[in-house]
Amino acid sequence: MERDVAVLGVGQTKFGSHPDKTLPELFAEAFFEAFDSSNIELRDIEAIYFGNFVGEITDGAANLGGFIADEIGLRGIPAYRFEGACASSSVAFRDAYLAVKHGIYDCVLVGGAEKLYSAGTPIGTRALATALDSAYEVNSGLTFPGVFALIARLYAKTYDIPLEKLREKIAHVSVKNHKYGAMNPKAQFYNKFGDLKVEDVLNSRMICSPLTLFDCCPMTDGASAVIIATADFAKDRIDEPIYVRGAGQSSAGSLFRQKWDVVKALPRKRSAEMAYREAGMTPKDIDVAFVHDCFTIAEVIATEAMGFFEYGKGADAVEEGLTWADGEIPVNPDGGLIGKGHPVGATGTAQIYSAVKLLRGELDFIKIDAETAITDTLGGDFGTLVNVILSVHRR
Amino acid sequence: MERDVAVLGVGQTKFGSHPDKTLPELFAEAFFEAFDSSNIELRDIEAIYFGNFVGEITDGAANLGGFIADEIGLRGIPAYRFEGACASSSVAFRDAYLAVKHGIYDCVLVGGAEKLYSAGTPIGTRALATALDSAYEVNSGLTFPGVFALIARLYAKTYDIPLEKLREKIAHVSVKNHKYGAMNPKAQFYNKFGDLKVEDVLNSRMICSPLTLFDCCPMTDGASAVIIATADFAKDRIDEPIYVRGAGQSSAGSLFRQKWDVVKALPRKRSAEMAYREAGMTPKDIDVAFVHDCFTIAEVIATEAMGFFEYGKGADAVEEGLTWADGEIPVNPDGGLIGKGHPVGATGTAQIYSAVKLLRGELDFIKIDAETAITDTLGGDFGTLVNVILSVHRR
Repeated sequence: MERDVAVLGVGQTKFGSHPDKTLPELFAEAFFEAFDSSNIELRDIEAIYFGNFVGEITDGAANLGGFIADEIGLRGIPAYRFEGACASSSVAFRDAYLAVKHGIYDCVLVGGAEKLYSAGTPIGTRALATALDSAYEVNSGLTFPGVFALIARLYAKTYDIPLEKLREKIAHVSVKNHKYGAMNPKAQFYNKFGDLKVEDVLNSRMICSPLTLFDCCPMTDGASAVIIATADFAKDRIDEPIYVRGAGQSSAGSLFRQKWDVVKALPRKRSAEMAYREAGMTPKDIDVAFVHDCFTIAEVIATEAMGFFEYGKGADAVEEGLTWADGEIPVNPDGGLIGKGHPVGATGTAQIYSAVKLLRGELDFIKIDAETAITDTLGGDFGTLVNVILSVHRR
Repeated sequence: MERDVAVLGVGQTKFGSHPDKTLPELFAEAFFEAFDSSNIELRDIEAIYFGNFVGEITDGAANLGGFIADEIGLRGIPAYRFEGACASSSVAFRDAYLAVKHGIYDCVLVGGAEKLYSAGTPIGTRALATALDSAYEVNSGLTFPGVFALIARLYAKTYDIPLEKLREKIAHVSVKNHKYGAMNPKAQFYNKFGDLKVEDVLNSRMICSPLTLFDCCPMTDGASAVIIATADFAKDRIDEPIYVRGAGQSSAGSLFRQKWDVVKALPRKRSAEMAYREAGMTPKDIDVAFVHDCFTIAEVIATEAMGFFEYGKGADAVEEGLTWADGEIPVNPDGGLIGKGHPVGATGTAQIYSAVKLLRGELDFIKIDAETAITDTLGGDFGTLVNVILSVHRR
């Protein structure tokens, strides 16, 4: 029998630099924030779904499930590590959600942690590249700024937009997300770059043409945690459960196998449609979106594949203000990956953190009249894609 | 509603050296063997549960779910990577089993792949050490031979057995498992070390006292795959479904947190008891066991914690022949990790492979009259522990 599923407490560390904490210690900080607002006992938690991308490389640390369980006082319970690159904790979240929905567990902990800032840019860049096809893409010299620079060029060509014009349009994603990130006390760029201008983005250091430094998200240390349970369990414990209405997941092979499709992000379209179908919703029912803006162009193609704008119209939309907090469909009002930071394995459940806080009216720095939110997390060059729909309404 | 779950086809590559294949290519080889004996269509497979431990380090390859789905013709379906060190594909298997049992999916693919032989011993040893506590254990200079040498010494002390006497007793594990490994055409040591003697083990190169080279399993490349589905789905397609009767999973923190308990392998006791309870069985109902013999002493403590022998009696048991193929409870008649090889992420579902083949009477090189089998996979120093019970009987 399928049960309704709800989010209880959520937690997130400050994103940025945490050189003095191990991954389990960092995760514990996020966990205890989530735990403190869940009104449950430790023993209520039956399993841990943990997302981490490259702990082996950054911290020499794999097999983290058991160490995390032990760290937070839950020694011995089943503890899983999920890895789907930048979508690691989103894959964990969907699996945990399905487990609660279908009666495997009543209450579980989901989350993630990553320490890419502390690893430094050279190690971090190589570590991130493991999310690409190692045999063909990485051996050709491709890393992620290159992937999204290719996608930006393909976007310009496909929709017949002059490249310089496109650069200006997508720069608005950076301006927007830095504006909100500067307002968010938990963001890596809190109080920084809040009045960034389009010209600042265009004139910042070129990373991989046409993308400049401000088109890119930063390297980040951080952790996030979410406690989920059956809706009935949640209702007995807290006043404002947020309900998980649907989740989708899809996958793809390398860029060379996706060919021209890559600009349409087809795995995302498939994943989002799976989530909408399960929720009985359409994109019109969504009030706010937290999408995977690892680069400015990434947010644009995400808003299209998720059905908010027609293909080729996403870049216009941000320029016209449609994805700003007061626009038609606010996108990343917490700063997104660009303004808030991107601790890879923690990013998915950090999106859930922001969505839940916003829906509860608990994001002090920004208020949006929203009842339903969607999250979107991309792993690699579409190898892993997860969408989650959250709502204040149970049905 | 809970459904019975069955195994359809199983596949395993030859274990050993596969320098010319990527991890997805290696996994595909195991998959197609499993697929060919499952009598299903590709489109029947709804999700992929994939275990891999350190692809980031050995092959620069993470985020493998999508690449694997694409490689075997299943582009776009949800594809997960599970990591729980040496138990990675066993964690994947248990999660997949629960998903089918509880109605999330009807038919899924589980498996794993790893390339530690090709990585070479220095990289391989460092990669394996990521399964330990990175902050305290590894920084103290500990790697896995050290962990199990400590456990062997603790075993000798706890049960008051002179260390030289213990060395002789546990050497029988190596003799036994090399005997069966030498008979197994898919084993890394096929046709090698089949007539190893206790003296050969004692006199081989000292790795970490009291453990010598022949007390250790090798570094291995390999992959394994298992297709599971509801029992009703399986019965419609094949003659001899093997039923998954129960599964358990547990966890622990670092050695320093487990203290003296480590010699009793308490997470394994908890995990095995979870599996027995679910299956409605006791250790007496098990006819054959495939346990995690990464070192000779590891097999001994496994057979105790799983309930086959009293604590302190496991070393006597192998010396007395009780765990040989014609003994009371045959252990690792496929050669185990020591004789067959240990491609970490593939090891768990390779145990399932051997168990299913043996229960079907399809292991040509060894016949054991068995109706029920248990597998046992250990990740790290008890950080992750998984047991699975398989039977020819549905209930």
